[in-house]
Amino acid sequence: MSKCKIWTLKAGFQGQAKRSDFQLVEGDLPTHLNDGELVCEALYLSVDPYMRLFSDWSKVGEPIVGEQVARVTASKNAKYPVGTTIRLSSGWRSHTHVRDVSTIDVMPELGDLPLSLTLGVMGMPGMTAYFTLVDVLKLRKGETLLVSGAAGAVGSLAGQIGKIIGCTVIGVAGSDAKVQWLKELGFDHAFNYKTEDIGKSIEKVAPEGVHCYCDMVGGEISFQAIKRMRNHGRMVVLGSISTYNTTNPTGPYLFTDILTKSLTITGFIIFNIREKWHIGEKQMAEWIKQGKLKYRETITDGFEHMPEAFLGLFEGKNTGKAVVKA
Amino acid sequence: MSKCKIWTLKAGFQGQAKRSDFQLVEGDLPTHLNDGELVCEALYLSVDPYMRLFSDWSKVGEPIVGEQVARVTASKNAKYPVGTTIRLSSGWRSHTHVRDVSTIDVMPELGDLPLSLTLGVMGMPGMTAYFTLVDVLKLRKGETLLVSGAAGAVGSLAGQIGKIIGCTVIGVAGSDAKVQWLKELGFDHAFNYKTEDIGKSIEKVAPEGVHCYCDMVGGEISFQAIKRMRNHGRMVVLGSISTYNTTNPTGPYLFTDILTKSLTITGFIIFNIREKWHIGEKQMAEWIKQGKLKYRETITDGFEHMPEAFLGLFEGKNTGKAVVKA
Repeated sequence: MSKCKIWTLKAGFQGQAKRSDFQLVEGDLPTHLNDGELVCEALYLSVDPYMRLFSDWSKVGEPIVGEQVARVTASKNAKYPVGTTIRLSSGWRSHTHVRDVSTIDVMPELGDLPLSLTLGVMGMPGMTAYFTLVDVLKLRKGETLLVSGAAGAVGSLAGQIGKIIGCTVIGVAGSDAKVQWLKELGFDHAFNYKTEDIGKSIEKVAPEGVHCYCDMVGGEISFQAIKRMRNHGRMVVLGSISTYNTTNPTGPYLFTDILTKSLTITGFIIFNIREKWHIGEKQMAEWIKQGKLKYRETITDGFEHMPEAFLGLFEGKNTGKAVVKA
Repeated sequence: MSKCKIWTLKAGFQGQAKRSDFQLVEGDLPTHLNDGELVCEALYLSVDPYMRLFSDWSKVGEPIVGEQVARVTASKNAKYPVGTTIRLSSGWRSHTHVRDVSTIDVMPELGDLPLSLTLGVMGMPGMTAYFTLVDVLKLRKGETLLVSGAAGAVGSLAGQIGKIIGCTVIGVAGSDAKVQWLKELGFDHAFNYKTEDIGKSIEKVAPEGVHCYCDMVGGEISFQAIKRMRNHGRMVVLGSISTYNTTNPTGPYLFTDILTKSLTITGFIIFNIREKWHIGEKQMAEWIKQGKLKYRETITDGFEHMPEAFLGLFEGKNTGKAVVKA
């Protein structure tokens, strides 16, 4: 019987995620496939901050959750012959025995674009950025958009889409190099939260406040940002990476600001609207082709280095989308 | 020159509001009116928790903000002859010199209803309850609605409107007598937060969580409530009375719940949609006539007792709407 490799958690994370929390185990692959089944081999795997959060709900010993793009290596399903590339959410595993092909995600139309983008611009982060701005925030031309985690997979795209819509875009990131990149991407303003007083920086460039806030980071950046939102401002919480490694985080009292400024704060998880992804994928591909949307990937080589790639997210090591090449 | 009485703040509130923060001063009334002007005498004045919050933005020496219903006592405006009753937001004052009648609020069609209701069911609290449920929460038949401050001016109406819409309604209030009244009003469940573990009580009657949360109180009740909201739950912040007397309140970190449950939290101030009040007033009057909506008022006698009536709100002394009869 052939084997596959699976990354699991030894006992779940406790506070700060660390290398020793991860355990590489072997799983079995079938010697015989039933009709309709297939086996695939991971080509690229996604590492994303949300995995830290979702892992609290996973059972110890199960693969860590996540998407991958894979190639079919054995098949008893005419729709997916050997060699087909597919995208699926089977977690951190080198090979997957797919019993039910209805669990396979629809692949985007990539054209000439690299396959890894199915996990980035053309995947979860891209769709998050697109639908957050268009559907949730309903961002309008002329508004001011603030983006935290702006040099990350979602933030870098959200800011660029904000510019395409015709907004003033302010990005917050964690290094001068990232800030420089954001300016190259067309962000109107970009700040390094590690060296600047973010509240004052926002105030300086948006003295009347921001209309919309697209948040990946949470914590102190968000507490400062909320103070700088306009009346009737809209905030979307897409992530809260600054606190994922903290047990029972606290913060200032937000209801008074929400009330007195009539703010709306919405949490949004892109997996809840999979049926609409094709709309966003089509638009993103078009914008890339037109040169309106640029992207970066931080690619780590080797399935065995998935924990390092993942932990790097919390140290701000990635610019753009972090993926692992299996 | 005749005089009027005005309640002002000596130096703004500092933390806990107290009787000595208030100062009764005299103001001048005109001996001569210009064309279009009028003078009116307060009949009923509203005291509401929001006045604690808004007072931070008032200048010391100015009347404390608030609505009143008044009778015109002198007029050079044919539209408002002497004897007309009007509603206006001129603050805590016994008489008002109205220079610009465009500042007078449109009076609701009261029919046989008592005049004081223009400050209650047919006024700010009634409109808040109505538009929160219908416009902001878009409450749907069959959903579960949680209401804090449920025996107050807004909460008692919000819960009843929830029942009219066809929802399961849970109320949280601060005494057994109030809880009893809520049950008489038709609330499905009502709890006394002073004697019960609110989180557990909600869980017991709504094991799958609540769809909507209409919040007047904030603080610990809201922290518990948010934990009991369903995925895609909607919360409206209408007030946060539990923290108005606290300087720099803090709380647990909310963004993780907002994100993982895709919650939406919206702050709502009814004064921002004055142009729509007539719709709500018509509906409220109809429901009262049909016996579907009941109300209580806690009436304090005497303009000189406005501070006591106001401070009583923070001690839970009122059931239903607190008004002062001048």
